[in-house]
Amino acid sequence: MFTLVVYDISKDKDRTKLSKALENYGLKRVQYSAFSGELNPHDRHVLSQHVKQYVTQDNDSIYVIPLCERCKRVCGVISRKNITLVDSRKVKVV
Amino acid sequence: MFTLVVYDISKDKDRTKLSKALENYGLKRVQYSAFSGELNPHDRHVLSQHVKQYVTQDNDSIYVIPLCERCKRVCGVISRKNITLVDSRKVKVV
Repeated sequence: MFTLVVYDISKDKDRTKLSKALENYGLKRVQYSAFSGELNPHDRHVLSQHVKQYVTQDNDSIYVIPLCERCKRVCGVISRKNITLVDSRKVKVV
Repeated sequence: MFTLVVYDISKDKDRTKLSKALENYGLKRVQYSAFSGELNPHDRHVLSQHVKQYVTQDNDSIYVIPLCERCKRVCGVISRKNITLVDSRKVKVV
Protein backbone atom coordinates (compact mmCIF):
# COMPACT_ATOMS: atom_id res chain seq x y z
CA MET A 1 0.00 0.00 0.00
CA PHE A 2 1.22 3.49 -0.80
CA THR A 3 2.57 5.01 2.41
CA LEU A 4 3.57 8.53 3.33
CA VAL A 5 6.02 9.00 6.21
CA VAL A 6 6.27 12.53 7.59
CA TYR A 7 8.48 13.30 10.55
CA ASP A 8 9.44 16.02 12.95
CA ILE A 9 12.73 15.01 14.56
CA SER A 10 14.81 17.70 16.26
CA LYS A 11 18.25 16.06 16.55
CA ASP A 12 20.25 16.09 13.31
CA LYS A 13 21.82 12.72 14.08
CA ASP A 14 18.47 11.00 14.66
CA ARG A 15 16.99 12.64 11.58
CA THR A 16 19.86 11.49 9.36
CA LYS A 17 19.62 7.92 10.68
CA LEU A 18 15.87 7.93 10.19
CA SER A 19 16.12 9.10 6.58
CA LYS A 20 18.67 6.36 5.84
CA ALA A 21 16.41 3.76 7.45
CA LEU A 22 13.44 4.93 5.36
CA GLU A 23 15.54 4.65 2.21
CA ASN A 24 16.44 1.10 3.21
CA TYR A 25 12.74 0.26 3.21
CA GLY A 26 12.57 1.42 -0.39
CA LEU A 27 10.91 4.75 0.32
CA LYS A 28 11.86 7.84 -1.66
CA ARG A 29 12.30 11.34 -0.28
CA VAL A 30 9.52 13.64 -1.41
CA GLN A 31 10.40 16.62 0.74
CA TYR A 32 12.87 17.65 3.45
CA SER A 33 11.08 15.60 6.09
CA ALA A 34 8.79 13.33 4.12
CA PHE A 35 9.23 10.02 2.32
CA SER A 36 6.79 7.93 0.36
CA GLY A 37 6.54 4.58 -1.37
CA GLU A 38 4.91 1.19 -1.39
CA LEU A 39 4.90 -0.80 1.86
CA ASN A 40 2.93 -3.94 2.65
CA PRO A 41 1.30 -4.15 6.12
CA HIS A 42 4.09 -6.38 7.46
CA ASP A 43 6.89 -4.06 6.35
CA ARG A 44 4.94 -1.08 7.61
CA HIS A 45 4.75 -2.71 11.03
CA VAL A 46 8.44 -3.64 11.05
CA LEU A 47 9.40 -0.11 9.92
CA SER A 48 7.25 1.46 12.67
CA GLN A 49 8.97 -0.66 15.30
CA HIS A 50 12.42 0.01 13.84
CA VAL A 51 12.19 3.79 13.65
CA LYS A 52 10.96 4.25 17.24
CA GLN A 53 14.60 4.50 18.34
CA TYR A 54 14.99 7.82 16.49
CA VAL A 55 12.21 9.46 18.48
CA THR A 56 14.29 10.71 21.40
CA GLN A 57 12.83 14.14 22.24
CA ASP A 58 9.40 15.00 23.64
CA ASN A 59 8.35 16.96 20.57
CA ASP A 60 9.62 14.38 18.08
CA SER A 61 7.13 12.45 16.04
CA ILE A 62 6.89 10.22 12.99
CA TYR A 63 3.62 9.82 11.07
CA VAL A 64 3.26 6.60 9.12
CA ILE A 65 0.28 7.19 6.82
CA PRO A 66 -0.93 4.47 4.45
CA LEU A 67 -3.10 5.95 1.73
CA CYS A 68 -5.62 4.08 -0.39
CA GLU A 69 -5.92 5.09 -4.06
CA ARG A 70 -8.70 7.55 -3.35
CA CYS A 71 -6.98 9.23 -0.38
CA LYS A 72 -3.72 9.40 -2.35
CA ARG A 73 -5.47 11.18 -5.21
CA VAL A 74 -6.91 13.91 -3.01
CA CYS A 75 -3.82 14.35 -0.83
CA GLY A 76 -2.29 17.77 -1.49
CA VAL A 77 1.21 19.11 -1.00
CA ILE A 78 1.70 22.87 -0.84
CA SER A 79 5.28 23.85 -1.59
CA ARG A 80 7.33 26.23 -3.70
CA LYS A 81 9.00 23.22 -5.26
CA ASN A 82 7.21 20.82 -7.54
CA ILE A 83 6.52 17.82 -5.35
CA THR A 84 4.88 14.65 -6.49
CA LEU A 85 4.18 11.90 -4.03
CA VAL A 86 4.87 9.20 -6.56
CA ASP A 87 7.76 8.66 -8.89
CA SER A 88 6.20 9.64 -12.23
CA ARG A 89 8.27 7.00 -14.04
CA LYS A 90 6.46 4.37 -12.01
CA VAL A 91 2.98 5.63 -12.78
CA LYS A 92 1.27 3.14 -15.08
CA VAL A 93 -1.27 4.42 -17.51
CA VAL A 94 -4.07 1.86 -17.52
CA MET B 1 -13.76 14.06 5.80
CA PHE B 2 -11.14 13.57 8.47
CA THR B 3 -8.06 15.53 7.43
CA LEU B 4 -4.52 15.55 8.71
CA VAL B 5 -2.39 18.63 8.06
CA VAL B 6 1.33 18.20 8.61
CA TYR B 7 3.73 21.03 7.89
CA ASP B 8 7.38 21.90 7.73
CA ILE B 9 7.66 25.69 7.86
CA SER B 10 11.00 27.22 8.80
CA LYS B 11 10.06 30.80 9.72
CA ASP B 12 8.56 31.14 13.20
CA LYS B 13 6.26 33.95 12.08
CA ASP B 14 4.82 31.96 9.17
CA ARG B 15 4.45 28.87 11.35
CA THR B 16 2.55 30.77 14.04
CA LYS B 17 0.22 32.33 11.49
CA LEU B 18 -0.37 28.96 9.86
CA SER B 19 -1.24 27.28 13.16
CA LYS B 20 -3.73 30.08 13.93
CA ALA B 21 -5.27 29.71 10.47
CA LEU B 22 -5.65 25.95 10.93
CA GLU B 23 -7.37 26.54 14.29
CA ASN B 24 -9.77 28.91 12.57
CA TYR B 25 -10.78 26.06 10.27
CA GLY B 26 -11.71 24.05 13.35
CA LEU B 27 -8.67 21.79 13.27
CA LYS B 28 -7.02 20.73 16.52
CA ARG B 29 -3.30 20.50 17.17
CA VAL B 30 -2.17 16.88 17.48
CA GLN B 31 1.56 17.50 17.56
CA TYR B 32 4.06 20.34 17.27
CA SER B 33 3.56 20.62 13.52
CA ALA B 34 0.41 18.63 12.85
CA PHE B 35 -3.29 19.41 13.07
CA SER B 36 -6.31 17.25 12.38
CA GLY B 37 -10.07 17.46 12.16
CA GLU B 38 -13.10 17.23 9.93
CA LEU B 39 -13.08 19.24 6.69
CA ASN B 40 -15.47 18.96 3.78
CA PRO B 41 -13.98 19.08 0.24
CA HIS B 42 -14.90 22.76 -0.19
CA ASP B 43 -13.29 23.88 3.06
CA ARG B 44 -10.27 21.72 2.32
CA HIS B 45 -9.87 23.52 -1.00
CA VAL B 46 -10.32 26.99 0.56
CA LEU B 47 -7.87 26.12 3.33
CA SER B 48 -5.27 24.89 0.81
CA GLN B 49 -5.52 28.16 -1.12
CA HIS B 50 -5.44 30.25 2.07
CA VAL B 51 -2.35 28.69 3.66
CA LYS B 52 -0.19 28.97 0.52
CA GLN B 53 0.91 32.42 1.72
CA TYR B 54 2.79 30.85 4.66
CA VAL B 55 4.99 28.76 2.38
CA THR B 56 7.76 31.29 1.83
CA GLN B 57 10.97 29.23 1.84
CA ASP B 58 12.15 26.61 -0.64
CA ASN B 59 12.10 23.79 1.88
CA ASP B 60 8.72 24.73 3.34
CA SER B 61 5.79 22.44 2.75
CA ILE B 62 2.28 21.74 3.98
CA TYR B 63 0.65 18.34 3.52
CA VAL B 64 -3.13 18.31 3.46
CA ILE B 65 -4.08 14.66 3.84
CA PRO B 66 -7.73 13.58 3.85
CA LEU B 67 -8.10 10.12 5.35
CA CYS B 68 -11.00 7.75 4.83
CA GLU B 69 -12.11 5.65 7.80
CA ARG B 70 -9.89 2.74 6.83
CA CYS B 71 -6.76 4.86 6.22
CA LYS B 72 -7.38 6.74 9.47
CA ARG B 73 -7.55 3.48 11.40
CA VAL B 74 -4.19 2.23 10.13
CA CYS B 75 -2.42 5.60 10.31
CA GLY B 76 0.25 5.48 13.01
CA VAL B 77 1.95 8.18 15.03
CA ILE B 78 5.25 7.37 16.72
CA SER B 79 5.99 9.75 19.56
CA ARG B 80 7.05 9.79 23.20
CA LYS B 81 3.84 11.60 24.00
CA ASN B 82 0.46 9.96 23.75
CA ILE B 83 -1.00 11.29 20.53
CA THR B 84 -4.44 10.55 19.23
CA LEU B 85 -5.51 11.90 15.88
CA VAL B 86 -9.08 12.37 16.96
CA ASP B 87 -10.59 14.05 19.95
CA SER B 88 -11.80 11.03 21.93
CA ARG B 89 -14.84 12.95 23.18
CA LYS B 90 -16.00 13.21 19.59
CA VAL B 91 -15.69 9.53 18.80
CA LYS B 92 -19.14 8.06 18.39
CA VAL B 93 -19.64 4.46 19.31
CA VAL B 94 -21.94 3.01 16.68
